[in-house]
Amino acid sequence: MYFEDFSKFICAYDDFEDSLYTIFGAPYDGTTSYKPGARFGADEIRKASWGLETYSPILKKDLVDVPICDLHNISVDGTQKDIMKYIYEASKNSMKNNKIPIMLGGEHSITYPVVKSAKKKYDDILLIQFDAHCDLRENYLNNKYSHASVIRRCFDLTKDIYQFGIRSGDEEEWEFGEKNTNISMELPTKEDINIIKELDKKIYITIDIDVLDPAFAPGTGTPEPCGFSSKELMNSLYLFKELKDNIIGFDVVEVSPHYDAGNITSIMGAKIVRELILL
Amino acid sequence: MYFEDFSKFICAYDDFEDSLYTIFGAPYDGTTSYKPGARFGADEIRKASWGLETYSPILKKDLVDVPICDLHNISVDGTQKDIMKYIYEASKNSMKNNKIPIMLGGEHSITYPVVKSAKKKYDDILLIQFDAHCDLRENYLNNKYSHASVIRRCFDLTKDIYQFGIRSGDEEEWEFGEKNTNISMELPTKEDINIIKELDKKIYITIDIDVLDPAFAPGTGTPEPCGFSSKELMNSLYLFKELKDNIIGFDVVEVSPHYDAGNITSIMGAKIVRELILL
Amino acid sequence: MYFEDFSKFICAYDDFEDSLYTIFGAPYDGTTSYKPGARFGADEIRKASWGLETYSPILKKDLVDVPICDLHNISVDGTQKDIMKYIYEASKNSMKNNKIPIMLGGEHSITYPVVKSAKKKYDDILLIQFDAHCDLRENYLNNKYSHASVIRRCFDLTKDIYQFGIRSGDEEEWEFGEKNTNISMELPTKEDINIIKELDKKIYITIDIDVLDPAFAPGTGTPEPCGFSSKELMNSLYLFKELKDNIIGFDVVEVSPHYDAGNITSIMGAKIVRELILL
Amino acid sequence: MYFEDFSKFICAYDDFEDSLYTIFGAPYDGTTSYKPGARFGADEIRKASWGLETYSPILKKDLVDVPICDLHNISVDGTQKDIMKYIYEASKNSMKNNKIPIMLGGEHSITYPVVKSAKKKYDDILLIQFDAHCDLRENYLNNKYSHASVIRRCFDLTKDIYQFGIRSGDEEEWEFGEKNTNISMELPTKEDINIIKELDKKIYITIDIDVLDPAFAPGTGTPEPCGFSSKELMNSLYLFKELKDNIIGFDVVEVSPHYDAGNITSIMGAKIVRELILL
Amino acid sequence: MYFEDFSKFICAYDDFEDSLYTIFGAPYDGTTSYKPGARFGADEIRKASWGLETYSPILKKDLVDVPICDLHNISVDGTQKDIMKYIYEASKNSMKNNKIPIMLGGEHSITYPVVKSAKKKYDDILLIQFDAHCDLRENYLNNKYSHASVIRRCFDLTKDIYQFGIRSGDEEEWEFGEKNTNISMELPTKEDINIIKELDKKIYITIDIDVLDPAFAPGTGTPEPCGFSSKELMNSLYLFKELKDNIIGFDVVEVSPHYDAGNITSIMGAKIVRELILL
Amino acid sequence: MYFEDFSKFICAYDDFEDSLYTIFGAPYDGTTSYKPGARFGADEIRKASWGLETYSPILKKDLVDVPICDLHNISVDGTQKDIMKYIYEASKNSMKNNKIPIMLGGEHSITYPVVKSAKKKYDDILLIQFDAHCDLRENYLNNKYSHASVIRRCFDLTKDIYQFGIRSGDEEEWEFGEKNTNISMELPTKEDINIIKELDKKIYITIDIDVLDPAFAPGTGTPEPCGFSSKELMNSLYLFKELKDNIIGFDVVEVSPHYDAGNITSIMGAKIVRELILL
Repeated sequence: MYFEDFSKFICAYDDFEDSLYTIFGAPYDGTTSYKPGARFGADEIRKASWGLETYSPILKKDLVDVPICDLHNISVDGTQKDIMKYIYEASKNSMKNNKIPIMLGGEHSITYPVVKSAKKKYDDILLIQFDAHCDLRENYLNNKYSHASVIRRCFDLTKDIYQFGIRSGDEEEWEFGEKNTNISMELPTKEDINIIKELDKKIYITIDIDVLDPAFAPGTGTPEPCGFSSKELMNSLYLFKELKDNIIGFDVVEVSPHYDAGNITSIMGAKIVRELILL
Repeated sequence: MYFEDFSKFICAYDDFEDSLYTIFGAPYDGTTSYKPGARFGADEIRKASWGLETYSPILKKDLVDVPICDLHNISVDGTQKDIMKYIYEASKNSMKNNKIPIMLGGEHSITYPVVKSAKKKYDDILLIQFDAHCDLRENYLNNKYSHASVIRRCFDLTKDIYQFGIRSGDEEEWEFGEKNTNISMELPTKEDINIIKELDKKIYITIDIDVLDPAFAPGTGTPEPCGFSSKELMNSLYLFKELKDNIIGFDVVEVSPHYDAGNITSIMGAKIVRELILL
Repeated sequence: MYFEDFSKFICAYDDFEDSLYTIFGAPYDGTTSYKPGARFGADEIRKASWGLETYSPILKKDLVDVPICDLHNISVDGTQKDIMKYIYEASKNSMKNNKIPIMLGGEHSITYPVVKSAKKKYDDILLIQFDAHCDLRENYLNNKYSHASVIRRCFDLTKDIYQFGIRSGDEEEWEFGEKNTNISMELPTKEDINIIKELDKKIYITIDIDVLDPAFAPGTGTPEPCGFSSKELMNSLYLFKELKDNIIGFDVVEVSPHYDAGNITSIMGAKIVRELILL
Repeated sequence: MYFEDFSKFICAYDDFEDSLYTIFGAPYDGTTSYKPGARFGADEIRKASWGLETYSPILKKDLVDVPICDLHNISVDGTQKDIMKYIYEASKNSMKNNKIPIMLGGEHSITYPVVKSAKKKYDDILLIQFDAHCDLRENYLNNKYSHASVIRRCFDLTKDIYQFGIRSGDEEEWEFGEKNTNISMELPTKEDINIIKELDKKIYITIDIDVLDPAFAPGTGTPEPCGFSSKELMNSLYLFKELKDNIIGFDVVEVSPHYDAGNITSIMGAKIVRELILL
Repeated sequence: MYFEDFSKFICAYDDFEDSLYTIFGAPYDGTTSYKPGARFGADEIRKASWGLETYSPILKKDLVDVPICDLHNISVDGTQKDIMKYIYEASKNSMKNNKIPIMLGGEHSITYPVVKSAKKKYDDILLIQFDAHCDLRENYLNNKYSHASVIRRCFDLTKDIYQFGIRSGDEEEWEFGEKNTNISMELPTKEDINIIKELDKKIYITIDIDVLDPAFAPGTGTPEPCGFSSKELMNSLYLFKELKDNIIGFDVVEVSPHYDAGNITSIMGAKIVRELILL
Repeated sequence: MYFEDFSKFICAYDDFEDSLYTIFGAPYDGTTSYKPGARFGADEIRKASWGLETYSPILKKDLVDVPICDLHNISVDGTQKDIMKYIYEASKNSMKNNKIPIMLGGEHSITYPVVKSAKKKYDDILLIQFDAHCDLRENYLNNKYSHASVIRRCFDLTKDIYQFGIRSGDEEEWEFGEKNTNISMELPTKEDINIIKELDKKIYITIDIDVLDPAFAPGTGTPEPCGFSSKELMNSLYLFKELKDNIIGFDVVEVSPHYDAGNITSIMGAKIVRELILL
């Protein structure tokens, strides 16, 4: 009675059965080639959530009114293949029970097993990516399931991919993107949303925090200058309000706390989670 | 003759008697609930002031032409109640001698005793708050004089309150604000200034540095994403030029240097002080 | 099944009923006068425990064989008085159920309510303090229950106090200590243990991490040079093996992670906890 | 065959003879008056370049197609006078061989010897400065060749000086600038470029990273609030595309990694270099 | 002529052919389970070497008199298996040419391929390990070639293993060590050296920097309290002077600079390399 | 009356005239070749002094009973030559008035002008140096008054030099030291003190904080492993109690706070000052 558990996301105290949203962390950064540490992201995002209010003055809703379960972190006891399997199973289990999984990264390679589980459940899905990087390499450092090839792997699962905020990639990736995905250097506009709405598909959103300018998200592995402000990103997320019934899951990845200043990247990660839940 | 004292705010070498502005620090953060450290803010703002020029190219004025006294820091030898009393007395003494007190925080709870002293001297005052948070709780963690309730306490002293840049609070605070204060998610505009001008009251300005986006002010206790840039804030402060004769004091609070990067938050705090003096 | 909870102390997964040891954090640092942040100590000690093995090669025992419950943190929703009451109740409840409470600080003021609960249960207790500071002030900054007066308050409860490693205090504190407690600049020796053994009392041990030299524990609020190495402290703790049946609780306080380097202070805190459990 | 050398700027593996661009670092910060450390800037910019792609999606060009030589760092074995001479000789040698020197600072005083070498080779040159500070003092701390007087010294060499982004200086500097140079608080516009184009002169560009707002470049010695975003700066650099055949060298100075967060300042420095090469 | 290259180890400017010692870095930390970052160790050790003198006052010798080649870093372009192969080849090539390879880590898994190459060349070798951890697991996180099993893998190559300074491991590892290797909680003594001398074998030395107490080496992934001082370690290394003709290579691993304070761990790493070369 | 000034050394509130000891800072690090930042040392030592008690339990004396004046910092408005002159004049003025100057560095080059002023006043003086480095170069980087040649310059003033704790230097320096000064790798012993006592000369003590092992003093520009603990250094300073009437001044130099962890180096600097005053 005198104790408090701050290790979960704020307000995420419901049981799995009762919950509508299931949060889990995937503290994996094994394919990171430049600066490791995204494995610490999930726990810092949770911790940072306690510095926010539960109420959103923009959306005029409160997290206390939403049943959310925080399942802790995916076990990392094994190889990449093992861990990808755990993530797949965890996500599949949430979806099977008609819950919306929210994954906190970890680096970007973890998105593939979730998209795969979504594909299994919903058959036809549309992937929205916010990112500074294309992540469209066929393979990177001799690994087909690297963070740098995750969207290319997702493309094996679904052709409906929208890439926003992209500003880095090798020539081949850009060519692939321009031919095969809807790749944009900008954030989504009202028009983009309308086009996506027409398609009327189940939507999975993956947010690589480095879509933000490094000033707003220094705590990430490969910060890429000339990105977006927190306000710009958030405003573009609010546009998805019209599509909220189509969203079947989302993730926030690549938060790497050791490179952060004043935890501002983790706090922004937590605020994205709060606002997307409250959409 | 060979010595220099960098422990005071730049150019603040005048005696109390000769001064027009009296700077003092209030190194108190006892009600901080999340990340403590604002107690170190005042001294870092002073230190940071030495990295600025004394001349403002926007206002075309120089600090060397203004008589300013730096009184060092308020003693923190005692309980919150004791310290609030010291601040009250210090501010009252400045005002009694027709000086403009400038308080460097410390966390936000320290604003109440200064407003109280202003109320005593000027009877009818108007409070301008720049902040990310409402600070309108009736009481927080069993304390009516918490940083989270400071504007509510000030409301006990004056009903003329303008809150700018607010983007966080619980539902109750927002309702209170919408009913009782002039609460805005935006920075003041020309129109806001005109309205305030009409009222023709003595004005006290309190600037919680977290009104800035965390990218511009990572060094603060509860950074709230999606805020304003330094340039946006400064431009809105320049609007107060027309009201400069009404300003009877101001403070800059919640600078918390341990969470800062490259001291940029302290430097911005110092620049705000310089520009507000030179208005 | 695919999830892991790293937010508890390593191996502390037992239920309260089944446990022999009950760990709880007390994330309070409200009386800290110099550098705050001990409120973050408990969670970092837990996190650091996951970098250790569960097996002690010195004691040849393993944490997996001990039933331990981690109750999370004491609520800090209230004033110092409220929080002290929560700690008292939490500790009392553990002792009532014949469990050994292990408190992770927080700053040193939190030791008083635990000693008070021990006094209630066992009537006659002996207090062992490892610390760089006397903590014998009658009152500090107008507060009788400050970290700087905690042992003086404990002296109100029991006259059997042994202070080890002390190297800082004002003249009055030293005089008080020399007259009233067993105060020593050194760590306990075999002879000290023998004397204590003779008394055959219930023993509570409070370890202020700053008993270590700052090189070994930089992550603390008031580091005091010329202290002890981790090895010296640990070896002196092993001497208590003979007294292990008398120990009714212990705490590790004043770990302040923001000032740490490579988390070495938190890791040492965690190792102390492991070894004292395995004694 | 199994080894890689990451100590050079990405892709800068060509020999001096074959190269079109010659990169060298000048790890000197001896005239820094406030916060030293720019001496570490050059190596961090190189290191950061490895976190970028070699391909620019805006310019649709790739560094792999440009012959670049990285000559390592200027020796700092000597006094300021000695080092200035080494820089002068190094730059002169590059220009003599019709290569474009790219200098990585170091603090701003190092720009003077390069401009001097350019003057020697091209006789008539135009200097473009991006900076928060005027750097127009006749002498600073008894030194005529200080970082704070570097543009004043360059003015001794050429009267064609354009200063952009300037927002700090003493009154005398501003007066000097307004009378003698083209000083602007803003970044260059299309019109500015047209005017410069008309002059049809050889152009040297010096970029003090503190032209950026401290949020975007915390890693610098004297951050000055209310500056520009990375995107704004980069867009203004793209305007120089029309002038690319006139550019005979450039430098990026005042990156000071110890004050940085997540290396974002160094990365921006590296991106500037990549984009200016690919113009 | 005016340039200097500080990216190599101090004095390591000789060509491969002329050299007696060949330094290379292995910036790999892919099996790290707790805190990653050892990939940055090699370059920081090199950088730190420039803060030392080249002359050893204890050994009365100077690095300038020894032909040393720094081959830069092993390529990490590939999977663990690829990288292990590169290391093996690099080490084999050095040994084939009768040079003494010195590897800078990276985490401990990289020692196996070097020992394997030594085994190939010298057939019968003896392995000396300085470490806080046994590293004797048969497999860790489903990986037989993990940092935590590296000595167990080496045991597959040679039964002559001496483990010094060990103070952490699970029960099974300790049992394995006590039965199969010469495992000691202490540093080597004169007697240990005499025993080893009798065996008269080729000796490879692997030094995990965490053998030092965390106070002396905070910059490492899994610091283990209650270790040794820098002076104690260095004195025990000096004992190997008698065996210097038997030493056919050595490595310093697990330096992880992001967790360091004042680069003291990297500097100690560099000093170990200097002194072992000058033995 | 409600204000406190923490910018001076603790208890150093007396006027120059009334004082016995005069503290001043010399925030100069212009000759630093490796890692700059000692310019910030003096102010951090002062700040750190407030975390200590004024009473020494070893010496059983209290700073409150000693008249001490803190003169702030030497002006650094000028070149090295100018600053050396200011220091010389400041020290000379203290000595002329029969006060004991205590200088807080700053890097080691600042010791020369103080020794010069002592030589002027007392004619025959003996210099005690605690340091990791010889500092006996005839000239360094083309500068005869570098930190690396300061003791060589002092040797021009007095031949009575005792060097303790030295463990780094080039071969030439060691030869010079062995021929001309009393150079020792160890700290002074009782015997050393006796020898010095016999000489019965005025004694000036210069303490380069890097005489400590980097674990105890990470916050310094060129940490040298295998040094001494804080306790070892302090105990050797206590030996000077017998010589206290001969001590005519002392300094603590090379504290460089940006590289520190938990401010432990500054705190040790402050404790040295307190204990040497109370000798």
